Amino acid sequence: MPSFPHSPIGLIGFGAFGRLVAEHLAPHVGLRVHDPFVAEAEFAAGGVAACSLPEAAACPVVILATPVSSLAAIVRAVAPHLRPGALVLDVGSVKVRPAAIMRAGLPPDVDIVATHPLFGPQSARGGLRGLKIAVCPVRGSRAGRVGAFLRRAFGLDVIVTTPEAHDREAAAVQGLTHLIAKVLVAMEPLPTRMTTRSFDLVMQAVGMVRHDAPEVYHAIERENPYAAEVRRRFFDLAARMDEDLGEGAGIEERVLLDA
Amino acid sequence: MPSFPHSPIGLIGFGAFGRLVAEHLAPHVGLRVHDPFVAEAEFAAGGVAACSLPEAAACPVVILATPVSSLAAIVRAVAPHLRPGALVLDVGSVKVRPAAIMRAGLPPDVDIVATHPLFGPQSARGGLRGLKIAVCPVRGSRAGRVGAFLRRAFGLDVIVTTPEAHDREAAAVQGLTHLIAKVLVAMEPLPTRMTTRSFDLVMQAVGMVRHDAPEVYHAIERENPYAAEVRRRFFDLAARMDEDLGEGAGIEERVLLDA
Repeated sequence: MPSFPHSPIGLIGFGAFGRLVAEHLAPHVGLRVHDPFVAEAEFAAGGVAACSLPEAAACPVVILATPVSSLAAIVRAVAPHLRPGALVLDVGSVKVRPAAIMRAGLPPDVDIVATHPLFGPQSARGGLRGLKIAVCPVRGSRAGRVGAFLRRAFGLDVIVTTPEAHDREAAAVQGLTHLIAKVLVAMEPLPTRMTTRSFDLVMQAVGMVRHDAPEVYHAIERENPYAAEVRRRFFDLAARMDEDLGEGAGIEERVLLDA
Repeated sequence: MPSFPHSPIGLIGFGAFGRLVAEHLAPHVGLRVHDPFVAEAEFAAGGVAACSLPEAAACPVVILATPVSSLAAIVRAVAPHLRPGALVLDVGSVKVRPAAIMRAGLPPDVDIVATHPLFGPQSARGGLRGLKIAVCPVRGSRAGRVGAFLRRAFGLDVIVTTPEAHDREAAAVQGLTHLIAKVLVAMEPLPTRMTTRSFDLVMQAVGMVRHDAPEVYHAIERENPYAAEVRRRFFDLAARMDEDLGEGAGIEERVLLDA
């Protein structure tokens, strides 16, 4: 196991993604996990011990694994307990706003790396190797070392980018996938036997995001500054396709008359 | 190779799907292929010899592999040359209208089985085994033997159904896949590196239908009597999701103010 810059690591948030982080880090580094909304028994089930916010926040490396919508409040709560020289990372699905929130709210003597693991508990079932993670340097020069660690320790495909470039791409990648999935789930029951291979692939994609926490969907669609524009383009193009099909109705009637 | 009820088989239409049919039938049965829009050299490349419409139509079994939109004209042209007791099959993506067209236009002493292979040249690249085909008895009692042959000879998953039940399911399965694919292709370029597994699956589905002939898209969206209703539900639900997201804009602003 290649060494992470420092240990122990403080993990704030023990939801679905926090648990995934803990599962993969716990065998290799000390962990101090804080989440006031999780019962003692769940920490035990995850093989970690709960601690207070000040304890977790005082670690040399602190990972914020809370919903994007509560990041501002978490940053305010964590800031007073951070040590000078600490490294703070987040793992949210968008990066422009979280990076701005962390830059504005964290002490200037703290380094910041914003990350977005492009996978969740579902896609990580078969292991982390080959899965992608976006890494954005926000403050300090430790993003390169973080990326190198993630590559060597877990075989992750590390994509170093900026919060803006990330959110532009994620608006299409995640915005479209989650929107389509949400609509298809609302249309259920959908056929399961008389299906094509392409429909099966679409429904497999739906299956991967359908159990995501509502916070994930909201972060992707609401807190990505480019998501609304992508949805607009999708709807405009879809409406145009629908219109084009409507115009062809005459052909359809002629076929019926022919028959 | 289990024997097909009769040989040779007449194949009317040598487009993308007709070629796939020929490729799999030619090694086992005699084929008489007619397509006035295909050059001699292309027949040769496909390993079959071209013949006239009357020759192809006089075979004991005749497969109509032409676009759904021209089926009425083809049925009119083929009808006078069919032998009593012949079996006619189509392979179109919808079944209600083709079944009605064939029932109305083919001589009463001819048996009719409407089929929809739920795959194309793309999905059949890895072989036919396990791929699905819908088989609808339209006239006569030979649908069962056709299904048994397709199962034994090619390992196809044969789904015996009615034209109405087929079109209801296909309106969702193919209508949605093709609509989504068409919109996503129009939105390109889309990200290719910073992607999630679920987005990759959606784009793999898009890749399977993006090169389908425009006739396939039009048959699926225009000539399926239930397709417009499915599109309507998709758009209504999508618009509602979009509206719900818009209403949450206040939350987003509060987060920014917090930061």
